[in-house]
Amino acid sequence: MTPEDHKLLSETGKGTAMGELLRRFWMPAVLSRELPEADGAPVRVRLLGEDLVAFRDTKGRVGLLDERCPHRTASMFFGRNEECGIRCVYHGWKFDVDGNCVDMPSEPEGSNFKHKVKIKAYPCIERGGAVWAYMGPPELKPEFPDLEWTMVPDSHRYLTRHVQECNWLQAVEGGFDTSHLAFLHKGTESEAQRPPERYQVVTIAAGFAAGSDGAIFRNERRFTTSMFLMPFHKLIPTRPLGAHAWVPIDDENTMLYSVYFNPERALDDEDMRRARNFEHIHPENVPGTDRARANKDNDYLIDRELQASGASFTGIYGVGLQDCGIQESMGRIADRTVEHLGVSDTAIIKLRRYLLDVLAAVNAGSEPPGLEPASARMRVLRQHPGGDLSFAEAVAQHGRVRDAAEAAAE
Amino acid sequence: MTPEDHKLLSETGKGTAMGELLRRFWMPAVLSRELPEADGAPVRVRLLGEDLVAFRDTKGRVGLLDERCPHRTASMFFGRNEECGIRCVYHGWKFDVDGNCVDMPSEPEGSNFKHKVKIKAYPCIERGGAVWAYMGPPELKPEFPDLEWTMVPDSHRYLTRHVQECNWLQAVEGGFDTSHLAFLHKGTESEAQRPPERYQVVTIAAGFAAGSDGAIFRNERRFTTSMFLMPFHKLIPTRPLGAHAWVPIDDENTMLYSVYFNPERALDDEDMRRARNFEHIHPENVPGTDRARANKDNDYLIDRELQASGASFTGIYGVGLQDCGIQESMGRIADRTVEHLGVSDTAIIKLRRYLLDVLAAVNAGSEPPGLEPASARMRVLRQHPGGDLSFAEAVAQHGRVRDAAEAAAE
Amino acid sequence: MTPEDHKLLSETGKGTAMGELLRRFWMPAVLSRELPEADGAPVRVRLLGEDLVAFRDTKGRVGLLDERCPHRTASMFFGRNEECGIRCVYHGWKFDVDGNCVDMPSEPEGSNFKHKVKIKAYPCIERGGAVWAYMGPPELKPEFPDLEWTMVPDSHRYLTRHVQECNWLQAVEGGFDTSHLAFLHKGTESEAQRPPERYQVVTIAAGFAAGSDGAIFRNERRFTTSMFLMPFHKLIPTRPLGAHAWVPIDDENTMLYSVYFNPERALDDEDMRRARNFEHIHPENVPGTDRARANKDNDYLIDRELQASGASFTGIYGVGLQDCGIQESMGRIADRTVEHLGVSDTAIIKLRRYLLDVLAAVNAGSEPPGLEPASARMRVLRQHPGGDLSFAEAVAQHGRVRDAAEAAAE
Repeated sequence: MTPEDHKLLSETGKGTAMGELLRRFWMPAVLSRELPEADGAPVRVRLLGEDLVAFRDTKGRVGLLDERCPHRTASMFFGRNEECGIRCVYHGWKFDVDGNCVDMPSEPEGSNFKHKVKIKAYPCIERGGAVWAYMGPPELKPEFPDLEWTMVPDSHRYLTRHVQECNWLQAVEGGFDTSHLAFLHKGTESEAQRPPERYQVVTIAAGFAAGSDGAIFRNERRFTTSMFLMPFHKLIPTRPLGAHAWVPIDDENTMLYSVYFNPERALDDEDMRRARNFEHIHPENVPGTDRARANKDNDYLIDRELQASGASFTGIYGVGLQDCGIQESMGRIADRTVEHLGVSDTAIIKLRRYLLDVLAAVNAGSEPPGLEPASARMRVLRQHPGGDLSFAEAVAQHGRVRDAAEAAAE
Repeated sequence: MTPEDHKLLSETGKGTAMGELLRRFWMPAVLSRELPEADGAPVRVRLLGEDLVAFRDTKGRVGLLDERCPHRTASMFFGRNEECGIRCVYHGWKFDVDGNCVDMPSEPEGSNFKHKVKIKAYPCIERGGAVWAYMGPPELKPEFPDLEWTMVPDSHRYLTRHVQECNWLQAVEGGFDTSHLAFLHKGTESEAQRPPERYQVVTIAAGFAAGSDGAIFRNERRFTTSMFLMPFHKLIPTRPLGAHAWVPIDDENTMLYSVYFNPERALDDEDMRRARNFEHIHPENVPGTDRARANKDNDYLIDRELQASGASFTGIYGVGLQDCGIQESMGRIADRTVEHLGVSDTAIIKLRRYLLDVLAAVNAGSEPPGLEPASARMRVLRQHPGGDLSFAEAVAQHGRVRDAAEAAAE
Repeated sequence: MTPEDHKLLSETGKGTAMGELLRRFWMPAVLSRELPEADGAPVRVRLLGEDLVAFRDTKGRVGLLDERCPHRTASMFFGRNEECGIRCVYHGWKFDVDGNCVDMPSEPEGSNFKHKVKIKAYPCIERGGAVWAYMGPPELKPEFPDLEWTMVPDSHRYLTRHVQECNWLQAVEGGFDTSHLAFLHKGTESEAQRPPERYQVVTIAAGFAAGSDGAIFRNERRFTTSMFLMPFHKLIPTRPLGAHAWVPIDDENTMLYSVYFNPERALDDEDMRRARNFEHIHPENVPGTDRARANKDNDYLIDRELQASGASFTGIYGVGLQDCGIQESMGRIADRTVEHLGVSDTAIIKLRRYLLDVLAAVNAGSEPPGLEPASARMRVLRQHPGGDLSFAEAVAQHGRVRDAAEAAAE
């Protein structure tokens, strides 16, 4: 990869090509449960290199404002969350969720100054247990995407997040790196999902589907897909279904949102046991933080005896931490100009090519893919739908979430 | 504010305009009690970005030397404080408080080398419980200023210091920001000092006086002043009287010296109770350090329930920490180019204008104001002196400290 | 010293003049006991600014590889140490100690890709309790030097290492700074080795010998030497004999290897008592690390009362920590352009001159000195060999290690 393309893919700050592309999409900014009550404590949010403060107002709406008060740049994090607005504690300027200055008691009565001042505010929507922000041009704000996991009842979903101390794309790449399943996760259930030889990638409206095309394995017809949806979503063919979103905190840190969900029923005890024993995609965090207990500073609590025994290929506990650890080990921004890619890196190459093509098309005036809400209404396939369908045909005909009416008609 | 003016006000290193201006004044470098005994342990001092070492010699004089030995640049902090000089432990070179090399045992007997070597040494004076240094051109060294709090007996004064992790001027501005009193400190005694509407600023010889001009509040004639004295002093109209000095450690850290003093009598138990319960300007430090226990890393131990209750506007305990916290929250060097100043920011604007004017005048060849010792002999007014005096007249006629003879004559 | 020469001496990265010179020599990379068993856990190594991973393979050979896997740059530190090779846990690529890719299971059977990929690998030799690496051009690899301490049985040697948080040459200079012995180490046995006035430096094939020329001290003929051997070795005239090697970790950190050894017999209880009470050159490390317990962050646990008492000139316990502390106190890379050198700095000046001359000669096409194994076969003299020999004659005739045949013939 050229240094130019590497830079183009990695940088997400305001004004960068990728940064502006990402800002066209709704992005998870904070968990809903971190803002549990109206008029509660504000929360710091860092998103694409911008420092912000989130708060839930009296009516339950979430505001996401610039951390800096426009008056004298004091931090709104220390603000008082009052009647439908947050008030800077330095001089009492108060702003609502839309960024309007609704009170400016430091100025003389009758002053018109407050009508001239706004604080940067990003629109928010709450879906699927998270607060989502839109940071792009107001006139281009899309409808919220029909991501299946955001549309199921809360009881059907388990959502966590944790920080990965590396660039967002490096982490996304890990999510679509099919060839690592047979190694990094050896000794876990994920290993059983290792790709057969004929691996395929098929473009869909909002991204692409990647997976096997039906080779025979242990007498069963193997067929799995995972899907990439713009700009950083992954749908995972686990049971229950899984999903990830890798949201850039800045260019050297990423917030990974991880989901288990069952479209048909509430998660049961067995699902929750899997989620909470940290063997799978949800690591255990240091309480009160978004950092995993097993992290870079303690070598992910690697157990060399366990590794030597072969029971775990890495000696690191849990699929989520194995991914996180190996991705972070590549450095804050892995150098893509020194790699040696093989045929097993098809999905990685496809992902990069896909994003570079999108950037080029947008630069040439096209709309990015995946803005149409229905384009995100996808579901991964865990088994072949039957018949002689090719991988591409199977994805095209059965990779969408059907609504009740459609399902009934089938 | 233009980026140029912002830079001009913020930078205090050697060779900068503000740095050279500050170096024309005596500045507190260390507390006297940190050098409790002759020939005791040396202490590190960082002042205006220069790394220094202070020590008290056999005769009780304090030396303030370059941290680096001129021989091979070893740190004099590890030096032996010996008979009237400090000796570098690497090769035994010894320097007195004036920077002379008084012994150089590593060189052959009869060598003249020691007479050719000096270490950078700044003159020091002890006043008011602090060691003050003069870092400017020797030929321009002024007399020590008649700051009232430095002239009262030790029993009449309570002096502490702590670090603010931000630029010095940002902290000074907080001290003269009158409009924050009604907000940041709501729920404290300082709130009662909130400025009435007709707020005035009057230039005095060494700086300016700022305050109300006598509006009626709760049936009382309101009248308070605070004073700015060059280059970073504030006189505070509390009971007992208060004072601050914000001394640049470097451009991103400031040492705030805070004083209570009573010109007429020793501080009594009630005064000390106020000082030591940390509700007011003196925060509690981590023992053995100059850092407050409630600091940036723990969000100043903000109590969100207390804040929500309205009993404290910030939920941060103590006027000193409220100021420190909000000033630090603006960043290491707050960006003055993105502010939105209103009419309530009169004092801030005045302070900046005043300093920029002084810099311009000095650049044009004038002497800075405030070098004349008597010009610092000021006292804030806590009540209107009576009669029909305007604010300016009251400050001019009653804002000076009278000596015994003058007082008797009145 | 000019800024150019200062830079020339300090920088050791790949492509710098000094960096390339150092890479011509075998350098200690890790202690043998840190890789105690075949197929055990790998160890991180940082050498001359390069991040590497060391592992002991099934046959007991030590490999020293690039930390980054050439495939996708994951860290080989997390690798599995398997049958004669280390396997990256991301995709299973496996490399042997010579850097060959011996397995690439992620690629299709029959793929030739693994024969096209190599990982950077440096040749290693184990000698004297350490693993030594050669990082220079393969065609210029020298024979291993005949350093005496690497040639004695393990029972005759005590070897430790610890980090100095400063540039390598600053630390080496401390080792050859003769004039500090009478000061820094006052109150220790090293003090008794203080140089008489007539101090001499004599060039030898691999470096130089420095010491006294036989002045009379306390009725004894004083005669001691220490030796500098290319590129960073010191031989120390203690009892038992001592040695140091200052190996650049990077330009701001140095790994100091410290040795006691007795060529004739195993170290006895008294020798070990001296080594382990940390009074001498071996400091006590934080368990599991290479950092001394008394370090920069705790001011080397300086005891100011002890220092004031005169029992220890520094108040810092142990010769090794006194050296480490004062060298680190000069800053990460001490500024050699502001020094004031005297006649007592002869050895420092000689060392710098020597290295600058070597760099110039190598630049002009010469081979560096000290590559010939026998040139390192030196031993310091602890007493005058007798007769009228000058210092230079004594070093020339008696400064070599004699082998058994030679010794018998004498």
